[in-house]
This record gives sequence, C-alpha cells and structure tokens, in this order.
Amino acid sequence: MTFDLRPIGLVESTLRDLQDAPPQGDEGAPEAWLVIEPRVADGLEGLAVGDRVVVLTWLDRGNRTVLRTHPRGDLTRPEQGVFATRSPDRPNPIGLHEVTVLSIDGLRIRVDHLEALDGTPVVDLKPVLGGVDER
Amino acid sequence: MTFDLRPIGLVESTLRDLQDAPPQGDEGAPEAWLVIEPRVADGLEGLAVGDRVVVLTWLDRGNRTVLRTHPRGDLTRPEQGVFATRSPDRPNPIGLHEVTVLSIDGLRIRVDHLEALDGTPVVDLKPVLGGVDER
Repeated sequence: MTFDLRPIGLVESTLRDLQDAPPQGDEGAPEAWLVIEPRVADGLEGLAVGDRVVVLTWLDRGNRTVLRTHPRGDLTRPEQGVFATRSPDRPNPIGLHEVTVLSIDGLRIRVDHLEALDGTPVVDLKPVLGGVDER
Repeated sequence: MTFDLRPIGLVESTLRDLQDAPPQGDEGAPEAWLVIEPRVADGLEGLAVGDRVVVLTWLDRGNRTVLRTHPRGDLTRPEQGVFATRSPDRPNPIGLHEVTVLSIDGLRIRVDHLEALDGTPVVDLKPVLGGVDER
C-alpha cells in the first residue's frame, strides 16, 4: 500500500547546498519564498501576514533506506533510530518547518528562516495550533 | 511529479468513526497504539517512554479535491482555504499529532490523545524540538 504525494509548490531559496544548511531553521536559515501552484490557489484564502505556519516539505535529497543515523550528523554521538531524530534521511522524508509569514504576493509567500534547499517540493501548509481558547 | 509515500505502520484506536473524533487531539481524543512495521524497526532505536513525539499520519478518509472549507466543520463560520485550517480534507492529507510516548512494547508504541481513526496509516515519527540548548 502506498500513497501518491503531489507537491503543491516549491521552495525558492538562496540555500543551494546541503553543506550550507543549518541543522534546524532557527539556527541561521535564511528567509525564503514558497511558490504555490495555481491549481491549489483557493487553498490559500485566509492565510495572512504574521501567521505562524507549519510548512511540510518533501526532502527529496534524503536517503530513504537509512534507519539509523548520528544525530545532527555528529559522528562523535552514538547512532540512533531515525524516528528519534530529525534527520532528512528516513523512510518518508517529510520536513516540518515552523515559520512566520512575512509577506504574500499572489501565489508567492515569503517566510522567515526556512531550512530547506532551493527547489525543495512543498506538500502542505497548516496553521500552528495555539491553545484551545484561540480556536 | 509525484512521490511515493509508504506507511511505516498504523494506528490502533477505539476511535472508529469520524463523528466520534474531536477536532484536535487535546480536546478529548483517546490513547492509542502505533503499530510499527518490522522492516523499519531499527528506526525506533533511542525512542523512550516520556518522549514528546510528532506522529505524521496519512488521513486516508480526507477528500483530496477540497480547497475551501468551514473551519472545524462549523457551517456558521466563513469558508477558508484549507491551508489556513487543519482540516483533514486537503490536497495531501498528512496529519500532525503531538503526543507523549506512554509505553513501548516491541513494535507497539502507546501514546496519549491521538485524534486519528483506527487503521489510519502512520508515515513518520519525529521528536518534538525543544529549545536550541537541549539539542
């Protein structure tokens, strides 16, 4: 049984190289654009500047056969199962990135510190959940 | 361009019916088991009781053609784009569920309040990120 994931857009970033990517977005990743496909434009209605959003990406450079890895690529740390890490190498390399929407220009959404390489497929956007009172 | 998502396990839950599911897990969802497939068992190494984990599911009852919806299914609230909501109806119906690991029995992981129906495919597990200091 498999499911068919269809990107809704892609990342446009100055991050071009795995060596340049910080381990997590809040450790120095640059601002980036999410470029959304016209066929899902209606899905963006209600999204606003200042919103906190979880961007789901498909980390297409990840190695899907890896099940054990050194946390944060640090060879001095013992190997762990990939489900106990945020490694991009994992059976289904879905990336989760909490960002703030900085601006919206039609189908282009500017976000802060996104640790995803230029060209990375975007597969979903969701609001960050606040407390129950805010819903 | 599409990607092939292969489940790593499934949810075993007393939630059998969409009508019974609360809008979010912290609004009364029951404990549940994640039943992980033997082929990815090595990926669990290092996962421990008490860990906070993001469970990624494939919400296979979601309607993938929906782009606008009433938030929380409430018809008195105006329609919004699905990317501004947590609706299970969306182009790629990936569910995000923050849970705590209650116990681990081989390939079976007990977690608290999971708002996913019995039989829902699990596609990934990741640790919840703490502050930069904890990494």
